[in-house]
Amino acid sequence: MKAKLTFLGTGTSQGIPIIGCQCPVCKSADSRDKRFRSSALVEYGGLTILIDAGPDFRSQMLAAGVTHLDAILLTHNHKDHTGGLDDVRALNYIDKSAVNIYCEPRVLDTLRVEYDYAFAEDKYPGAPVWKIHQISEEPFVIYPENPRKELVWVHDVGYRYMMPDGTKVPTGNDLDNAEKVEDPDYTGLCKGRGGNGVEIIPIRGLHGMMPVLGFRFGNIAYITDMSMLPDSELVKLQGLDHVTLNTVSYKPHHSHFSLEQAVETAKKIGAKHTWLTHLSHNFPVHEEFSRELLKSGEGRTMIHPAHDMLTLL
Amino acid sequence: MKAKLTFLGTGTSQGIPIIGCQCPVCKSADSRDKRFRSSALVEYGGLTILIDAGPDFRSQMLAAGVTHLDAILLTHNHKDHTGGLDDVRALNYIDKSAVNIYCEPRVLDTLRVEYDYAFAEDKYPGAPVWKIHQISEEPFVIYPENPRKELVWVHDVGYRYMMPDGTKVPTGNDLDNAEKVEDPDYTGLCKGRGGNGVEIIPIRGLHGMMPVLGFRFGNIAYITDMSMLPDSELVKLQGLDHVTLNTVSYKPHHSHFSLEQAVETAKKIGAKHTWLTHLSHNFPVHEEFSRELLKSGEGRTMIHPAHDMLTLL
Repeated sequence: MKAKLTFLGTGTSQGIPIIGCQCPVCKSADSRDKRFRSSALVEYGGLTILIDAGPDFRSQMLAAGVTHLDAILLTHNHKDHTGGLDDVRALNYIDKSAVNIYCEPRVLDTLRVEYDYAFAEDKYPGAPVWKIHQISEEPFVIYPENPRKELVWVHDVGYRYMMPDGTKVPTGNDLDNAEKVEDPDYTGLCKGRGGNGVEIIPIRGLHGMMPVLGFRFGNIAYITDMSMLPDSELVKLQGLDHVTLNTVSYKPHHSHFSLEQAVETAKKIGAKHTWLTHLSHNFPVHEEFSRELLKSGEGRTMIHPAHDMLTLL
Repeated sequence: MKAKLTFLGTGTSQGIPIIGCQCPVCKSADSRDKRFRSSALVEYGGLTILIDAGPDFRSQMLAAGVTHLDAILLTHNHKDHTGGLDDVRALNYIDKSAVNIYCEPRVLDTLRVEYDYAFAEDKYPGAPVWKIHQISEEPFVIYPENPRKELVWVHDVGYRYMMPDGTKVPTGNDLDNAEKVEDPDYTGLCKGRGGNGVEIIPIRGLHGMMPVLGFRFGNIAYITDMSMLPDSELVKLQGLDHVTLNTVSYKPHHSHFSLEQAVETAKKIGAKHTWLTHLSHNFPVHEEFSRELLKSGEGRTMIHPAHDMLTLL
């Protein structure tokens, strides 16, 4: 099953241009040099999935014309990836239901602090409504928003909602774990599984000292905000058409791949195409950076800078 | 002393257009119907002052070409007014100093929770750097960012930095109270006072049950997110050229003035011009709303809808 990924933002935490900066990249007239904070929209198995909801969330939804999300996946809990979660309210109103957020327990801990009003028992009117699904680095399944559910009697349990194919509804409880996938098949493309859910494969990496997740959707994997990707994760990244990787500078950085590290990692993964994201004004303007990267994959992968609103198929 | 105020945002908490909305206001092609979250830039007494820093902060700074702020004043602690405070980092880098934030203790309490990393003893690199000045509803003075300071010997105290005119540096301690103004003169325009600081007069109101502040800068007062302005505050609002007031709908609202309440309040204040902000798609498109408001002030004030990037002098 093939995915479609649209970059909604490809900039580092300050975006490009940076407020007040007069450098050639920040002053570039090329629209590809205007970068919102990193985020991507994935269409996969009939579902519309957002990765990260930073401060530009509203502008990004408007730019891409998005009016419905089946899920928001969070890579980690920094503001440039979570700062827009208040603005899902528009989607609450449209769908008349909670927005489904998939994140690790450590990310949830931070959301509970930074958005305490979204978790209040007695919410003030207009607070965002979220349904949190806790995930780990184990593959998990996302079902469509508001799937057709059936109320069935389960012996020793009582009535509960089930999916039409008899599987458990994974989103029934606010803090239910997302359903785990047994024996995931990393070596081929991910497959849709049971009912009309789709399987997502998390990729574990480190952002400085902070554990973060990337995500694989069939033929495309999205990785951002890593400074280290363990070799043990490479098995999950075989046979990709596209992979994204983050880099912020030529020089080593405490929590992001340098360009050299990103290129080395890209060659190890060996996707047909590698798209660099979370870019900063430390790199040249898009056109020049594209040329610079042209041969850097040394035949093992084609490396390109991503840009906002670029779509991968 | 006259102020200049530029609206950087005039929209309600979701902005206009609202994600996914197909109504005539959200689909309007008139640029005056595109509204970022409410915020204003005030140039006053040689200082550049921002009121509120919501999620559109970065876009607003770029749109207005702002590269320096002497102060950010916060009206209250809702995300549509504080969600962009992480993005002041660009200003930290430019000025090589903290950004000065003026807010009430209750707002500070929320910032400490929602941005705990900005208050950490051992901050991670790239966290925003703020200098918090606690204010109350008493008038206070803002001094320019990085004023020329002199290290002087004070008997029984030791060396300390002083302003060139011998007054205490009000921003020395992270949590110092801002300097209070004795015997403020509400009846005339606010005046610059001592050194090169300027006096700001807070206006107390209620946003539902939440106390919020408006601010008067000489001939202009900025009020948003109120549903009640006590008559006792009217003494602070005499002789204004311009006042802003919030409204979100024709119908009564739990935490904002309805249009009728805003119009009544505008007439009580009696500024030459009243500018409505924090507007929602419940009102008609800008052009039509302007005509509708034309005679609503009944000769006591001229009432207009504000729009983004409108400047008042």
